[in-house]
Amino acid sequence: MQRDDSDSISAALDVIGDRWSLLILRAIFRGQHRFGEIRDDIGIASNLLTDRLHALVDHGVLARVPYQDRPTRFEYRLTDAGRDLSPVLISIMQWGDRHRDDGNRPTVLIHAGCGAEIENITRCTACGESVEAQEITAAETEAV
Amino acid sequence: MQRDDSDSISAALDVIGDRWSLLILRAIFRGQHRFGEIRDDIGIASNLLTDRLHALVDHGVLARVPYQDRPTRFEYRLTDAGRDLSPVLISIMQWGDRHRDDGNRPTVLIHAGCGAEIENITRCTACGESVEAQEITAAETEAV
Repeated sequence: MQRDDSDSISAALDVIGDRWSLLILRAIFRGQHRFGEIRDDIGIASNLLTDRLHALVDHGVLARVPYQDRPTRFEYRLTDAGRDLSPVLISIMQWGDRHRDDGNRPTVLIHAGCGAEIENITRCTACGESVEAQEITAAETEAV
Repeated sequence: MQRDDSDSISAALDVIGDRWSLLILRAIFRGQHRFGEIRDDIGIASNLLTDRLHALVDHGVLARVPYQDRPTRFEYRLTDAGRDLSPVLISIMQWGDRHRDDGNRPTVLIHAGCGAEIENITRCTACGESVEAQEITAAETEAV
């Protein structure tokens, strides 16, 4: 049976189903915007970084923006679609905090407005309760 | 500068920083537990599936459990650490729903208890408000 429900996850993985792409996005979320900064931050070979940056721009999650004339130089900024990947990185980080590094948490993420920690949760839109994986069922919507 | 804050994300990506591994986990979350079921569900070559299943078992996110004697046959079940990857897959799916497939949502995820949809959000642990990427800062904890 062809499963319609595969589409959104596999379509998203065309963009981010790659270790380097996620590490590049992490670097940019944390303020590294220029080629050399990103390369040094994550330790990626220049040719791979060029390749991944082009793909992320093509997929509409990064924008290549000039920051200097003569010679023109570019930096990489998150688009709105790119910023919407924030929960993906945060959920990955939370899992790593819990299940890797012996429970160490090298970084905490802070709500700039109030100084408290932020968290990523899955909750019910009706009752507002946090929902465990076992309580979730997938329902296919009508084929279009 | 060596960045301590890279650890939890890159450690997690050692386990799931791979398109096939995430598609295998998706299949298992949705009830495909046996080798042939998973292979047919995601269209992966048998040798790649064998390789990825071994890695996921080694990383402690899947358990290989016998379901038949003579000959003994095994199926793959999520461990507690594996079930904790649910928010990662849900956040990826939400992003795909919003930014791929022209906004189609082939699948909706339902809270089995009450029948309403579930959602993945990032929120502040103090004020409880949903938090946008721009309002988040990363703070390094003290080196151990």
